[in-house]
Amino acid sequence: MPVNYSPTTSLLPVKGIRLASLDANIRYKHDRDDLTLIEISESSSVAGVFTQNAFCAAPVTVCRDHLQQEDDIRYLVINAGNANAGTGEEGMTSAQMICAEIADETGTALNSVLPFSTGVIGEQLPYWKIVERVEELVEKLDADNWMTAAKAIMTTDTTMKAVSKTADFDGKTVTITGMTKGAGMIEPNMATMLAYVAIDAEIQQDTLQTILNEAVGCSFNSITVDSDTSTNDSLMLMATGQSGVVLNELNDEDQSTLIELINATCQELAQAIIRDAEGATKFVTINVEAAPDYAYAKEIAYSVARSPLVKTALFASDPNWGRLLMAVGKAPVKDLDVRKISLWLGETLLLENGEPAESYSEELGQIEMNKEEIVIRISLNAGEAEACIWTSDLSHEYVTINAEYRS
Amino acid sequence: MPVNYSPTTSLLPVKGIRLASLDANIRYKHDRDDLTLIEISESSSVAGVFTQNAFCAAPVTVCRDHLQQEDDIRYLVINAGNANAGTGEEGMTSAQMICAEIADETGTALNSVLPFSTGVIGEQLPYWKIVERVEELVEKLDADNWMTAAKAIMTTDTTMKAVSKTADFDGKTVTITGMTKGAGMIEPNMATMLAYVAIDAEIQQDTLQTILNEAVGCSFNSITVDSDTSTNDSLMLMATGQSGVVLNELNDEDQSTLIELINATCQELAQAIIRDAEGATKFVTINVEAAPDYAYAKEIAYSVARSPLVKTALFASDPNWGRLLMAVGKAPVKDLDVRKISLWLGETLLLENGEPAESYSEELGQIEMNKEEIVIRISLNAGEAEACIWTSDLSHEYVTINAEYRS
Repeated sequence: MPVNYSPTTSLLPVKGIRLASLDANIRYKHDRDDLTLIEISESSSVAGVFTQNAFCAAPVTVCRDHLQQEDDIRYLVINAGNANAGTGEEGMTSAQMICAEIADETGTALNSVLPFSTGVIGEQLPYWKIVERVEELVEKLDADNWMTAAKAIMTTDTTMKAVSKTADFDGKTVTITGMTKGAGMIEPNMATMLAYVAIDAEIQQDTLQTILNEAVGCSFNSITVDSDTSTNDSLMLMATGQSGVVLNELNDEDQSTLIELINATCQELAQAIIRDAEGATKFVTINVEAAPDYAYAKEIAYSVARSPLVKTALFASDPNWGRLLMAVGKAPVKDLDVRKISLWLGETLLLENGEPAESYSEELGQIEMNKEEIVIRISLNAGEAEACIWTSDLSHEYVTINAEYRS
Repeated sequence: MPVNYSPTTSLLPVKGIRLASLDANIRYKHDRDDLTLIEISESSSVAGVFTQNAFCAAPVTVCRDHLQQEDDIRYLVINAGNANAGTGEEGMTSAQMICAEIADETGTALNSVLPFSTGVIGEQLPYWKIVERVEELVEKLDADNWMTAAKAIMTTDTTMKAVSKTADFDGKTVTITGMTKGAGMIEPNMATMLAYVAIDAEIQQDTLQTILNEAVGCSFNSITVDSDTSTNDSLMLMATGQSGVVLNELNDEDQSTLIELINATCQELAQAIIRDAEGATKFVTINVEAAPDYAYAKEIAYSVARSPLVKTALFASDPNWGRLLMAVGKAPVKDLDVRKISLWLGETLLLENGEPAESYSEELGQIEMNKEEIVIRISLNAGEAEACIWTSDLSHEYVTINAEYRS
């Protein structure tokens, strides 16, 4: 059950984007869609960021190649149930076969198609199950299919995760819609498992990539469920330009507004992943402030967010703040002066300049820990940088899900 | 229940060492010893390594100070049930009060006493409960008390962990006895929670510290339960010289034998911690070989050993080797060429030069995974260095223990 998250009941179409999903029977026994095609109108810009895992999946390698070779990306094809990772040369061939079929069916270049896979690692992808359904997929393409697509890309997710936003610029409305999936193997080193965000503003390719790189830092690159980085992480940002709003032609304030629209969408999707994290019972925000620099702050926040002992204490609603100290203290940073550190659980001060706070009582700590949304604030009093990480707790359900996922 | 570990039923006294334990009622409700004193004969050498956690406990700070100021360490005092960590200035005073009482009672210098604490973090240590029992402790000192001491230092451990070994040099017998405790919050950055090793050979202080630093690298610094580094980790090595064997006077081969005796003791104790790791059902050895250098190999081994998804798969006996690839691939090392990597589960080849092994079948993987002792071997084919890490799996019991430890 996701923590304080109700999936949206409608998503706005984005001009220039059409989608289709169907049940290709790739893995799941029960009837559910597991294959999705996204069509992007001509002359759109497409930017992407991918996993830093050295064992990246075959489709990630193909995506990188195609993005490098081709400016005009027209189709994204996404299957759930099989990650096509750890599949060697055969997996590369499978991904290429799927792209070739779509290129053939739609009359586009092979390089215009990007493949994505998510699901179990280390099994060959039954690519023929996808190839034989391409014609049908193309026929089903429709601008109103975001809801079904957001469901079709799920694996261990318990809920679809998607959001639409709009903003007006000189009387023209820009629409942004994004969807993501992921619940475990989450500590993206640039993007979580799969996320697709489309906006109908016109944004040049280079600018779009820069905007995406920035947006990722404070969204998908600031979450962790289990510190495990997926082999398949991919985040795609598409800008079709069909709203008539052109980023370059906006004044500075409107440019900021438009970029913030993208940032907010990415952040909301990233947080949705944490709310739906495997076995999560808490949504935890870790703020590190007054740090020497951003990387320093982020290391400490991650050290707390990754700690199994912190996460089991959160699960137990146990104000065992000694574990917070431990996790801060083990962070791989230099010259951490614990005598300057202050630490809060919600509004409750636990530690002041390295000394236990006199105002603290177990009762106050318990009140904070009982909440579903927990904020841990750590001030280093050693600079002006800050970082924020969102994470979940470590529950029996997490172990159950991951000990039984394949069986 | 520890994995393939039966505690020893007897330990050998080490000439020059006497011990005493009693129930000081520091935390535990049930009758059990929780306070231990170790006396070291005059003119012994004592070496130590301590946690790298910036939030180190008060006794660790006191130990470091005393070791720096004093050559002749005579007493170690160890309490279980309270870590005296996160306790600020008051905690420092508590540790000093205990040392002062022992110094007073035994007529030694304050700096000759080293304090150690283990247990819950963030609560003040009831030092008076220790102070008022010092006289009794000193009276109980006896060379034959290793077994009771090894039990008295336990916290969440399910078994005492200790070992004795002997070796003969020119007709003289050297005895080494060591004990350790620790089951969670285990990824020592130099030593696990608490370990005490005594040998009756004569080894100069500087040499002893060098030997200890080496021994730690391949023992306590090569294990992880939950990637969490304790605030209290301390490992002490004492050499009394009372066997009459002097390291410096031995020939090269005998010197190696004596040092290996220390290494083997440390390794056996470190492995015992993993066998008794919180909730452990498997004892897992991760060998990374043919790496560019030792640090590189160790990073990859730790990346696998720390991965919650690898650890839950191990718990489930699930040959989900995709997770192994993921964990290798996310390691923070440069220029990892996955096309050169080969990977074995026990004797079963999973991956050969980055490609799935044709000889592999799920049945073969299952046979390996069903074992209690699992060896994961990763060859990088990129050099000659190797590293070995020992770890446990992540079970429901781990979550239960750590969600309920304080309550």
